Amino acid sequence: MTLVDSPTFERDGHAILGEFFELLRLPNVTGHDHELEQHAGAIVELFADTGADLTIHRRPGASPIVLGRLDVDPALPTVGIYVHYDGQPVNEPDWRSDPFDPVVKRSTEATTEPISAAVEDRSLRVFARASADDRAPLIALATALRQFRRSGRTPSVNLVFCFDGEEERGSPNLSTYLTEHRHDLDADHWWICDGPVHQSGRPQIVCGVRGYVGLELTVFGPHVELHSGHYGNWVPNPAQTLVEILHTFKHDGHVEIEGFDACATPITTSDRRAIGQLPVSEPRLLQELGVAAPERDVPLFESVLTSSFNIRGLRAGTVAPETRNIIPAEAKASIDMRLATGVQPEDAVEQVMVHLSTIGVHVVDHPPTAEERARHQRIVQVVPEIAYPGFRVDTASPSVDRTRRIIESTTGDEPVVVPSLGGSVPFHHLHAVLGVDGIVVPIANHDNNQHSSNENLTIDNLVYGIELFQTLLTSDHPG
Amino acid sequence: MTLVDSPTFERDGHAILGEFFELLRLPNVTGHDHELEQHAGAIVELFADTGADLTIHRRPGASPIVLGRLDVDPALPTVGIYVHYDGQPVNEPDWRSDPFDPVVKRSTEATTEPISAAVEDRSLRVFARASADDRAPLIALATALRQFRRSGRTPSVNLVFCFDGEEERGSPNLSTYLTEHRHDLDADHWWICDGPVHQSGRPQIVCGVRGYVGLELTVFGPHVELHSGHYGNWVPNPAQTLVEILHTFKHDGHVEIEGFDACATPITTSDRRAIGQLPVSEPRLLQELGVAAPERDVPLFESVLTSSFNIRGLRAGTVAPETRNIIPAEAKASIDMRLATGVQPEDAVEQVMVHLSTIGVHVVDHPPTAEERARHQRIVQVVPEIAYPGFRVDTASPSVDRTRRIIESTTGDEPVVVPSLGGSVPFHHLHAVLGVDGIVVPIANHDNNQHSSNENLTIDNLVYGIELFQTLLTSDHPG
Repeated sequence: MTLVDSPTFERDGHAILGEFFELLRLPNVTGHDHELEQHAGAIVELFADTGADLTIHRRPGASPIVLGRLDVDPALPTVGIYVHYDGQPVNEPDWRSDPFDPVVKRSTEATTEPISAAVEDRSLRVFARASADDRAPLIALATALRQFRRSGRTPSVNLVFCFDGEEERGSPNLSTYLTEHRHDLDADHWWICDGPVHQSGRPQIVCGVRGYVGLELTVFGPHVELHSGHYGNWVPNPAQTLVEILHTFKHDGHVEIEGFDACATPITTSDRRAIGQLPVSEPRLLQELGVAAPERDVPLFESVLTSSFNIRGLRAGTVAPETRNIIPAEAKASIDMRLATGVQPEDAVEQVMVHLSTIGVHVVDHPPTAEERARHQRIVQVVPEIAYPGFRVDTASPSVDRTRRIIESTTGDEPVVVPSLGGSVPFHHLHAVLGVDGIVVPIANHDNNQHSSNENLTIDNLVYGIELFQTLLTSDHPG
Repeated sequence: MTLVDSPTFERDGHAILGEFFELLRLPNVTGHDHELEQHAGAIVELFADTGADLTIHRRPGASPIVLGRLDVDPALPTVGIYVHYDGQPVNEPDWRSDPFDPVVKRSTEATTEPISAAVEDRSLRVFARASADDRAPLIALATALRQFRRSGRTPSVNLVFCFDGEEERGSPNLSTYLTEHRHDLDADHWWICDGPVHQSGRPQIVCGVRGYVGLELTVFGPHVELHSGHYGNWVPNPAQTLVEILHTFKHDGHVEIEGFDACATPITTSDRRAIGQLPVSEPRLLQELGVAAPERDVPLFESVLTSSFNIRGLRAGTVAPETRNIIPAEAKASIDMRLATGVQPEDAVEQVMVHLSTIGVHVVDHPPTAEERARHQRIVQVVPEIAYPGFRVDTASPSVDRTRRIIESTTGDEPVVVPSLGGSVPFHHLHAVLGVDGIVVPIANHDNNQHSSNENLTIDNLVYGIELFQTLLTSDHPG
């Protein structure tokens, strides 16, 4: 990315980073409501002198959501800005530093540097959970608004804010929250600030996202773990059964579930053209990731226009160094399916259920009873987590064009326009409830380790975010 | 099992259990040498006033072994007794009580009862790691020897002792220890006291064991965990690759490794006859274990005359409740293969290696280099743990017959004679180094949860062990 001139960061970098670090010190694991409650309060405080008017809303059984407005003039257009403040869980042993005690480093392995070094050298990175996904836009937006307010100028646009606290677990209550407060959320279009910029480092606009469904599968074996010698190759092993079941779902790069992806919005010539114009970074990316070849011989951004079936976890028995010679009592697989636009999550789950029945599996929604154990050889408990469908807008739509111009005037770089992100954000809910389009405007570096350990944000990308929002406040918005 | 009359236990039960509990309080996890060193010392102390002369032997890099003798008269025959004092690792959260703080209970779920209750009611159980596998024979033997000595009588047999500290990790140094001390270990035949009695509850003699090989497989994916949305169905998922590889090894009850079990000693008509005479307990056993049907439609004890391929563990990424939406960086499977007599463990490992090459896997013995990652799509690290081959003696051999008579005169019950145990004990080493046959004489209840959590020994089986050894000391031994 071309380095963005930033008088703001050059002058106030130390204070901005100090404020960011304060935010990052707050644990924000999705589903941990006491953490998220505290975090929502911190966001309201962060935006205190920005001119934005934020309110925390709550519902029983839901994490809080922060909604708000910054009204300038009803005659001006309104841009909605969506950010989520919850983060993925952390596996602490894999982190090189405390995930909730941010540090500045050049790389995961490097030693810690003082904050002042980061003000000087923008290739340094801030390491902390959710430093990139998705607290980067929060600090960037608050900083941009505050600086703009101090300048005494009037923004050229009204803003509406939606800061989601449940994105990392599928935003189960977002639709309800949006419906309840839809009259305060009137905007001409939305910016969904999430995800990374392009792997080439160039700024990026994303015109869609995949939908999302999670599935937890448990295969049941004997009541208790058994000695693998006395019973091995006589009592069925649930880990073996799990392997055989998973193999029927997918092998050799093909998903074998009947009807899988049949309703996906077709990839058009113009999608392929847009993908063809993307900087070709696949070979570099493969090398960087340490893999020899992709699963399918198509460009990455064509691949993510189709649905995926991903094993995000396997658990059964024990492996070295704690190996015990047993037949496990159960075996678990955790699956996520990213859904192409057009595929309904309920349909995807139903197809999995039908598939399991077809291959002779007895599906249960509870641990099996003695009677079920006596009657069925293959018993699988399925716990689905239905999130939302995918959504795409045309790469040639006016909101894409408008945002492209804002980014160009921020960086001088023409942004990469991607038909769809592989990841999922609740794009669909914004469209379905509020009836307007949105696009994804990412800020974080592509190699931010999001969802993994040692998540990080480069200072460069933080500065890009600040300047991007400042440009938004001064741009010409034809509405 | 018919209740054994036991004046010894009726009189001294409380003291015997007290002594047993002291032993069980010593952690004895295999490979934990500081624990095993202390435990070996405790065994020498346990046998202090039994007439047995025990010595702890050590080798660099090995756990200690306890060897010894009880010489009565060179003209009398000599029986060797093999027991192991190391235990399997424990997964504490799965235990209902501290694995190294023994308690008396009726069942895993029941409440704790005082030791005195166990003296009265022999259906109660002692819960502790290695209470059954394999410290039961140690307390039974020490008790029998001590009581016999107090009676002032002379044993009708010389004894040789081998108490192994490495059985649960494949006895890697037993052969060397036996070779070093073979001249002190001269016996006419060996009793290997390990494993459970028959599932029907009847006493059991076992004429063979399966060999054993362990394999730890690691499939490598991207360098770091990746976001499953941005990269899902483009970057190959190592958990998916692991599933596909494991499926090629075995599916639908058949192992597909070229040459697998080809060298197994054939199952003879007389083997089938012996198996046919076993109490038919399969349906009851299946019900007790909570499974509908066995993996293959053959009797359990025929099944264990062939080799097994067992997935003892799977590990990749995360599952609920700590699910993260990732493509894991690696996926692991832990395998154990129990080997039919005739199959050499080195050959079994070689067959696995050839199989992996045949299906296009690049096998490494180290984490892959960047160059290997760039060149090979499927990379698997294999860490084999070669233990020992299986071994069987003829069910009609004299040592089987002798032991049958000893058991009959202990219990009044005709013992079940099983051609082979499914499990593994280092039978082969005793035969290969010492040149004599052995048989397995189990003591523990079949439902002892060995290798699993909540391992236990019924008081009945403890008493059976004490009386069995007392009978051994007075039996007529034709040599």
